[in-house]
Amino acid sequence: MDQVILEDVLEQLRSALEANDLATASTIIEELRPADQADLFWELDEDEQTALLPELNPADAADILEELYDEDVVELAEQLPLDKLIQIVNEMEPDEAADLLDDLEPEQAQAVLAQLESAIEVKSLAHYEDDTAGGLMTSAYIPLWRRITAQQAIDTIRAWRPDEETIYYLFVTDALKRLVGVVNLRQLIVADPATPITEIMETDVVYVYTDTDQEECADLMQRYDLLALPVVDEHKTLLGIITVDDLVDVIQSEAGEDIQRMGGAEPLDRGYLDTSILVITRKRIGWLLLLFITATLTGLVMDSFQDELAAAVALSIFIPMLIGTGGNAGSQTTATIIHAMAIGDVDWKDAWYVWLHEMRIGVVLGLGMALVAFGLAVFWTQDYRLALTVATSIAGIVLWATGAGSLLPLTAARVGIDPTVVSGPVMSTLVDATGLFIYFTIARLILGL
Amino acid sequence: MDQVILEDVLEQLRSALEANDLATASTIIEELRPADQADLFWELDEDEQTALLPELNPADAADILEELYDEDVVELAEQLPLDKLIQIVNEMEPDEAADLLDDLEPEQAQAVLAQLESAIEVKSLAHYEDDTAGGLMTSAYIPLWRRITAQQAIDTIRAWRPDEETIYYLFVTDALKRLVGVVNLRQLIVADPATPITEIMETDVVYVYTDTDQEECADLMQRYDLLALPVVDEHKTLLGIITVDDLVDVIQSEAGEDIQRMGGAEPLDRGYLDTSILVITRKRIGWLLLLFITATLTGLVMDSFQDELAAAVALSIFIPMLIGTGGNAGSQTTATIIHAMAIGDVDWKDAWYVWLHEMRIGVVLGLGMALVAFGLAVFWTQDYRLALTVATSIAGIVLWATGAGSLLPLTAARVGIDPTVVSGPVMSTLVDATGLFIYFTIARLILGL
Repeated sequence: MDQVILEDVLEQLRSALEANDLATASTIIEELRPADQADLFWELDEDEQTALLPELNPADAADILEELYDEDVVELAEQLPLDKLIQIVNEMEPDEAADLLDDLEPEQAQAVLAQLESAIEVKSLAHYEDDTAGGLMTSAYIPLWRRITAQQAIDTIRAWRPDEETIYYLFVTDALKRLVGVVNLRQLIVADPATPITEIMETDVVYVYTDTDQEECADLMQRYDLLALPVVDEHKTLLGIITVDDLVDVIQSEAGEDIQRMGGAEPLDRGYLDTSILVITRKRIGWLLLLFITATLTGLVMDSFQDELAAAVALSIFIPMLIGTGGNAGSQTTATIIHAMAIGDVDWKDAWYVWLHEMRIGVVLGLGMALVAFGLAVFWTQDYRLALTVATSIAGIVLWATGAGSLLPLTAARVGIDPTVVSGPVMSTLVDATGLFIYFTIARLILGL
Repeated sequence: MDQVILEDVLEQLRSALEANDLATASTIIEELRPADQADLFWELDEDEQTALLPELNPADAADILEELYDEDVVELAEQLPLDKLIQIVNEMEPDEAADLLDDLEPEQAQAVLAQLESAIEVKSLAHYEDDTAGGLMTSAYIPLWRRITAQQAIDTIRAWRPDEETIYYLFVTDALKRLVGVVNLRQLIVADPATPITEIMETDVVYVYTDTDQEECADLMQRYDLLALPVVDEHKTLLGIITVDDLVDVIQSEAGEDIQRMGGAEPLDRGYLDTSILVITRKRIGWLLLLFITATLTGLVMDSFQDELAAAVALSIFIPMLIGTGGNAGSQTTATIIHAMAIGDVDWKDAWYVWLHEMRIGVVLGLGMALVAFGLAVFWTQDYRLALTVATSIAGIVLWATGAGSLLPLTAARVGIDPTVVSGPVMSTLVDATGLFIYFTIARLILGL
């Protein structure tokens, strides 16, 4: 339903732009929610975007820029008159503004910073890495001093910038700005107005440091169902907070990166259709080449069994099925283990149990597959000895693939490699060579080649 | 740091349990946060769990059960004395209680329900599917009547169950309990106490129906940065709310399912090591068999080119590299497209542009790979015509794989199949057969077989 309506709005927007009626176009955009504003804006051509952006209310323009990809924002920002850009950056969340300034040309960034209202805040956020707690945190929060009462706290909240987001948690600090506790708004309302904050607050606060990895922040917030996570320095001085909507984006993007990596492709930094062919090629060719080179190993195995192949040409027709099944059985295992590791179900300490579990699964799976393979091979070739070779090989290959597939991600994580990288393509290539070796060796024994 | 401390606590817990000192053990658990309580509890043996659970404060026991896998909860619940179970279920969130009762044996569920404080709420939640808005929502929220003032709203909040979670949004209903607006707690505090709610509230509320899929709920909450999402029936009567912590779990679990499916394994319903070998085998063997059978197609292609293979045995040694590269190039493409689809970057309408983009990428990638393949084949076989065959084939296979890989997930989604299912293994199998066909056809032409 939502989608249909947005498409109607897009029609209206386009006809306003065609009539060069920027005022109507701005009104159409400004009536939407930020995510929808960004979606519609995104559908426009570059010329239309460049023309429309300076006409929008700076607060709406800021919302839109916050939703777009970093590189597109930079391109748009470079087209904007300086005074417009400053107005817009003034309306952005401090953490987003810091990210943008970081990406702009140094001269432009300097010019904006010189006239920014919250220059100090933004500057102090600018030197943290994007994927750490420091890069995620915002300085737009209300610290409460610990010597005040519930009523004074509520008055502080009333006096706070009126355009601020909902406040869920309020963090309490001492005179040195060190984090000492947390209260939620409801606790404040329910408390007797004269109650000191220290009597209401919880002192056992979960916090992170500025250099804590964003994935760890997300794990903590999810684990403890937190709506905001305070970020401190080494003296426990409160520097900012991370809000739950940022966390949701982190979880989504980390999952997206995992999915791309499992397919053997490096994650992209911006929209797919906007990423140039050369950039995408560069992100893929490394893996393809590496796997191509390692696949020569499989070629070598094939080469060294040329005599067997020549003696029993029918052997070759089962090669695709055998190495395919090995690769698939291995991928299934790594995918399951990677997921179990991600949710904290298993880790390196469980390696022995995981391996044992997979070996048992491998035996059952292998026997099942062997049975089907035997039937199929007999039907196809009417050669019982060949069928026995194929069936025995497939049992061995499945067992080997599940065993290797279980230990590969655990070992990778143990030595500090992202386990999603070893999955899929690498697994297949690894199992291909060894699978062929198993097949030809068993063929030698059973067929007496 | 967290981890080390938890391990110390586990030591203490274990020694308390060994000394049969259940009181101390309970105290140790009760001092922790729910997620940590569940983690420690999970580390205990079944006997220890069964002994300890009835001794815990019912509220803590409820927190623990809410964090465990459904099937484990059922096993524990079946061991509990009925009165204990009722006490614990009374402390659970209504949606979690409904899920549990749904999983219990009908007689036990009836017995619990008969004595439950919130029986009506729980019963009304019990008939929704787990993965819909109805299954996710809780009835533990405060609806505000639209005829009240800001001050009356704050009084209502004060009078609400004191053990309730933080309230972020308050939903406003009319006399027929139909959803008419939303306010946040801060707006209430900031407003003049005599202001009618209707003047503060936003009337443009994002809502879902009880049968809305949980993934759509998660998308909406993420898109509009919502902390709570109201669930209504066809008359727009407010039935419950979904909170952001449930959303985070949904995103995480959907991402986990995608990762497992991309590896060709059906997602598991409970902990990996606790899932029996037969269940895991059943979840894998379907795919393995299907892909094995479809791989006979590749075998058939191989079979039909036996003469060419016999005439030029050296052709066979490049088979693993060629089909491997095709599969990998295809997986890279599907992974990228699946991710771009998931974040709303591309959809079916963009199919033409996506295909064009991938074809261009395929040309560049294919030429790059062909160059390397030519060098490698010359080095290996000293046969320039064979090397040309290999190089041309790999260019063709990469181009074909990127093209097919781009359209496969889009087409799958279009016809209502989960695109993660077609990725990885299916892609490889598809590209294997066609890749071989391309290879042998080019070999015929160049080598004149």
